[in-house]
Amino acid sequence: MADFKVLVVMGSDSDFPVMESCFKILQKFEIPFEARICSAHRSPYQAAQLASTAKASGFGVIIAAAGLAAHLPGVLAAYTILPVIGVPCKGGALNGVDALYAIVQMPTGIPVATVAIDGAANAAILAAQILALQNESLAQVLETYKKELEASVEKRNECLAEKLVSIGE
Amino acid sequence: MADFKVLVVMGSDSDFPVMESCFKILQKFEIPFEARICSAHRSPYQAAQLASTAKASGFGVIIAAAGLAAHLPGVLAAYTILPVIGVPCKGGALNGVDALYAIVQMPTGIPVATVAIDGAANAAILAAQILALQNESLAQVLETYKKELEASVEKRNECLAEKLVSIGE
Amino acid sequence: MADFKVLVVMGSDSDFPVMESCFKILQKFEIPFEARICSAHRSPYQAAQLASTAKASGFGVIIAAAGLAAHLPGVLAAYTILPVIGVPCKGGALNGVDALYAIVQMPTGIPVATVAIDGAANAAILAAQILALQNESLAQVLETYKKELEASVEKRNECLAEKLVSIGE
Amino acid sequence: MADFKVLVVMGSDSDFPVMESCFKILQKFEIPFEARICSAHRSPYQAAQLASTAKASGFGVIIAAAGLAAHLPGVLAAYTILPVIGVPCKGGALNGVDALYAIVQMPTGIPVATVAIDGAANAAILAAQILALQNESLAQVLETYKKELEASVEKRNECLAEKLVSIGE
Amino acid sequence: MADFKVLVVMGSDSDFPVMESCFKILQKFEIPFEARICSAHRSPYQAAQLASTAKASGFGVIIAAAGLAAHLPGVLAAYTILPVIGVPCKGGALNGVDALYAIVQMPTGIPVATVAIDGAANAAILAAQILALQNESLAQVLETYKKELEASVEKRNECLAEKLVSIGE
Amino acid sequence: MADFKVLVVMGSDSDFPVMESCFKILQKFEIPFEARICSAHRSPYQAAQLASTAKASGFGVIIAAAGLAAHLPGVLAAYTILPVIGVPCKGGALNGVDALYAIVQMPTGIPVATVAIDGAANAAILAAQILALQNESLAQVLETYKKELEASVEKRNECLAEKLVSIGE
Amino acid sequence: MADFKVLVVMGSDSDFPVMESCFKILQKFEIPFEARICSAHRSPYQAAQLASTAKASGFGVIIAAAGLAAHLPGVLAAYTILPVIGVPCKGGALNGVDALYAIVQMPTGIPVATVAIDGAANAAILAAQILALQNESLAQVLETYKKELEASVEKRNECLAEKLVSIGE
Amino acid sequence: MADFKVLVVMGSDSDFPVMESCFKILQKFEIPFEARICSAHRSPYQAAQLASTAKASGFGVIIAAAGLAAHLPGVLAAYTILPVIGVPCKGGALNGVDALYAIVQMPTGIPVATVAIDGAANAAILAAQILALQNESLAQVLETYKKELEASVEKRNECLAEKLVSIGE
Repeated sequence: MADFKVLVVMGSDSDFPVMESCFKILQKFEIPFEARICSAHRSPYQAAQLASTAKASGFGVIIAAAGLAAHLPGVLAAYTILPVIGVPCKGGALNGVDALYAIVQMPTGIPVATVAIDGAANAAILAAQILALQNESLAQVLETYKKELEASVEKRNECLAEKLVSIGE
Repeated sequence: MADFKVLVVMGSDSDFPVMESCFKILQKFEIPFEARICSAHRSPYQAAQLASTAKASGFGVIIAAAGLAAHLPGVLAAYTILPVIGVPCKGGALNGVDALYAIVQMPTGIPVATVAIDGAANAAILAAQILALQNESLAQVLETYKKELEASVEKRNECLAEKLVSIGE
Repeated sequence: MADFKVLVVMGSDSDFPVMESCFKILQKFEIPFEARICSAHRSPYQAAQLASTAKASGFGVIIAAAGLAAHLPGVLAAYTILPVIGVPCKGGALNGVDALYAIVQMPTGIPVATVAIDGAANAAILAAQILALQNESLAQVLETYKKELEASVEKRNECLAEKLVSIGE
Repeated sequence: MADFKVLVVMGSDSDFPVMESCFKILQKFEIPFEARICSAHRSPYQAAQLASTAKASGFGVIIAAAGLAAHLPGVLAAYTILPVIGVPCKGGALNGVDALYAIVQMPTGIPVATVAIDGAANAAILAAQILALQNESLAQVLETYKKELEASVEKRNECLAEKLVSIGE
Repeated sequence: MADFKVLVVMGSDSDFPVMESCFKILQKFEIPFEARICSAHRSPYQAAQLASTAKASGFGVIIAAAGLAAHLPGVLAAYTILPVIGVPCKGGALNGVDALYAIVQMPTGIPVATVAIDGAANAAILAAQILALQNESLAQVLETYKKELEASVEKRNECLAEKLVSIGE
Repeated sequence: MADFKVLVVMGSDSDFPVMESCFKILQKFEIPFEARICSAHRSPYQAAQLASTAKASGFGVIIAAAGLAAHLPGVLAAYTILPVIGVPCKGGALNGVDALYAIVQMPTGIPVATVAIDGAANAAILAAQILALQNESLAQVLETYKKELEASVEKRNECLAEKLVSIGE
Repeated sequence: MADFKVLVVMGSDSDFPVMESCFKILQKFEIPFEARICSAHRSPYQAAQLASTAKASGFGVIIAAAGLAAHLPGVLAAYTILPVIGVPCKGGALNGVDALYAIVQMPTGIPVATVAIDGAANAAILAAQILALQNESLAQVLETYKKELEASVEKRNECLAEKLVSIGE
Repeated sequence: MADFKVLVVMGSDSDFPVMESCFKILQKFEIPFEARICSAHRSPYQAAQLASTAKASGFGVIIAAAGLAAHLPGVLAAYTILPVIGVPCKGGALNGVDALYAIVQMPTGIPVATVAIDGAANAAILAAQILALQNESLAQVLETYKKELEASVEKRNECLAEKLVSIGE
């Protein structure tokens, strides 16, 4: 639906389970994407190559997920002017705080748009919001999605009465 | 230069000094913007109004800065499908960690693109990156800016030799 | 027993298990309450509506539980002069520290009475303490509850001797 | 104006500067209060005495401020069924995080209504919200205060234009 | 063996499993002790009574274990000049950091000798070290224990070779 | 007054200003002490020597102050059965949290009695409490000191009324 | 292959499972090593002996792993001029943050080369990098290993397509 | 004196004041070095070039200093098999904890030898320890330095007596 593709890069295939919700949202919103495993540390040349050619390859947004000393989003951002969305992955002894700090605390000049720890679905939604600026039908998809969110809250209220009754017993 | 305006919202006028570098980048990049003080807690109706009408008012990106229990970016995001960039402001006893967590840890469905604590300049650059997707001349501005960053590093190397000499003395 | 009702709002139905102890205390103390799922981000209009009409609807206290970037208590507080009690819910990578900071670090003007992470029972007790100011029989219930707490400590001491014997063996 | 007095207890006179904004709000709202210095550790008998007689002495709410291992609010709460509002004070190497945890993480049975680190003004506002449940004129004062907050945001917007101009120069 | 008894106080019987290693060390070292469950918040009068009479009752050291907003060690210390050893118990969302801060960050005048989170065995050893100052045979027990610790390290080295072989396979 | 001396060891002379309050309390309580600068890292042989001979040299308690990776208290404790009191010193980027963790989190077998960050005075008081177990006149000194603490709280209350008046103006 | 041996020291045999990946890398790289359990606190004399004789015994690098108040790497470093690599081990309530701080925050004069929490494999690789400075064949082994890392990333990309298909279903 | 040079890279010239002590140690130890400003984000191509040619250029060790999301040491390590020493620089709202985590928490395969926050002098000493493995005269310099450290501790003890006298007055 969108005119740009989204490039989803994971630092390791252990990040795949976290990123499933990202892929599902992109599929649901019919946003074309490509996924790559690419490490800022183990395959730095590919990372540089991937980011520096992303714009010319038709990508509009890069989503990068990494854990621990999560340099991947920042390293990709160093090589492109495309907006880079960073997903800090929980994992290791510090539970993702290390990844959050390593992604969000970028120095002036090279921003990374950081979402929550393991916030893979939101990375996809944010990418959609960015691409929707020039794609009115994608904007409509997002408006509909927002209404679904609201409706799902209302729906859960219906189940609440029953649950409360069971407590009282 | 861009077709969309940027809306910059601050939770309090005490956030203004931090946001100066944001305004300067927007001016430097010739991106039209409007600035507002609006609090998620003290003026919630205006916040809701501002966000829910932002798209129709010609804005393409919202930048929201707040400190402490920094709800503003998330609250604005609740009312719009525009990408919202959150700037956690340092301040108070927790030095901005509270603001960072309150902005970045958004639940599924409502992302906020979070930048570094006090990362106001990067918020503007990220906004520019987003708007540049559909504005090639803004993209050129960003490419130039990236080259300037690189050049400024090289320039600083020139001063290094002198500094090292003075240590040796 | 009390003249005011308590409004219990949860940001998500995943907060229900945590809030069970809140409902049980309210039931035990015979305090009338209503429970709602309502999200500051997914159903912001309802949140605003709920809080701004709560006083007129006969509520005296609002208890709001949320996790992650837990904006719900603060957002409700923005729309009402009723005391709002916030329950930070453990969950996600940060174990509720994010929710605690997002609830307790409210800016001047809009307080939220914050209890412990997952402190749902205490939220109900605090609500009872507030309502007991104008309800002497509820005050008696609280005095009795306090004595029960003290008695339960004494009772546990009786089991201690046996446990210690088993260690010595 | 309210029928109950507020008891404000500080763990040390070094907490006085922080608590000034609390006293000012209570005076502004014309809520009668008494202030005491009383330490959970240095004067434990007085603390016990103060809290256990507070209700009979006509107090409706206790505000307790303390720093470091801030036991005062919890210790007072142990001796009374009155709502106790805790103000964690910044100070020492941990900047008030120790005080926050020591106040908010109360065990089941003995809640403390915790406000932000150094959130003295909000402690007073929260006390007012509690007392306003049975005092309609105090409720009116709070409604007015809420409108003032909103108006002050609007007023600050007027100064914003000038500030932005000066940046552009 | 020692002339003074040790008083071991737990804030809740849920702290018992943690404290087992404390009891075992006291038994191993033949130090007489009494154990009590007593809460600074749920049974404050008993806590005050227990601590203020501990010296006259023949106790020489108090060990106090508590979790969350762990006020118990500090509250007991407020009522006695006996050395109080605090054991922060892991538990709840903050994993015992709340308990550690609430125990160790005592204000000037009222120290608590804090050991590691869940450091129950060390609390007993520290109590033994204190009592050994006036009990030479207990000092001998401690010297022997120190040699056992050293010997146990040496013994574990013997198993190491085998383990390493199994890796190489 | 006490029969044992106290050995006060500092990891660096930069810890001296923090430790002044420790020396003052020891002098006030007339407890004989010796002070040494000795580093676990820069002078490890002296540290080992100092601790292993401390008991034979007539010391009853060791107080050790250190900052950063504060190994000194634990290292001294490794060489002696005397109770070792550790004072984590604020300093460096982590404000003493590193020192606190490095001192308090000792493994089973080798306790360090940890006081607050920069809690030098409390280290001296704790030493006094330990030595008072076998020195009744020192116990009297401590009882008197406790009463002074209580009296000083009462005295500060007298100044409070004036301060409050000045706010009201 | 290397001319120096690596000495691997663990504070406790509970650190063995973490250190397995260290031993495997050393074996894979054919670097001779010896492993020892040795505690800075339980066997301090052996620790001092081990470190002070390590250079003369033909060791070129020391790897030291410890958890909690992890003094071992720093204590060994105090007794040798060999480079000491510290591995903070996750464990206990603080998940290894205590060990990290206790290892990395060494004072000026006595560095410890710290790797990630549980970063045992990287400790071995770092040791290999150090030894490779004077051993060209080990340098070749490292170059090959680096290429293997890069190749393994590429290989994982091949599996990615399948995984993505399964999501779409 | 050493056969290899040390390459010192700073992410920004604002890191220079911190790194002065590094340069002074290298000069004192007569270790040849070159210094460069090079950013992982602003000049990524140079960073890659610098690291990938460092070994061939005669460098034996790389010291890299950076603050905030400090990717520089890890990025350099990705391109070389030389040991890379990382210096986390204090700065920004998080006081260097972000830099520490971003440097030390490297994934398996690419270690960075991390020293303390602002631990620039120790980075130089660690480099010297590494280079001394094949340079006996540098090893002698380090042995001498170690003795100087020990002597300086002893010397400070001499001033201690005077300081203590002044307290007593």
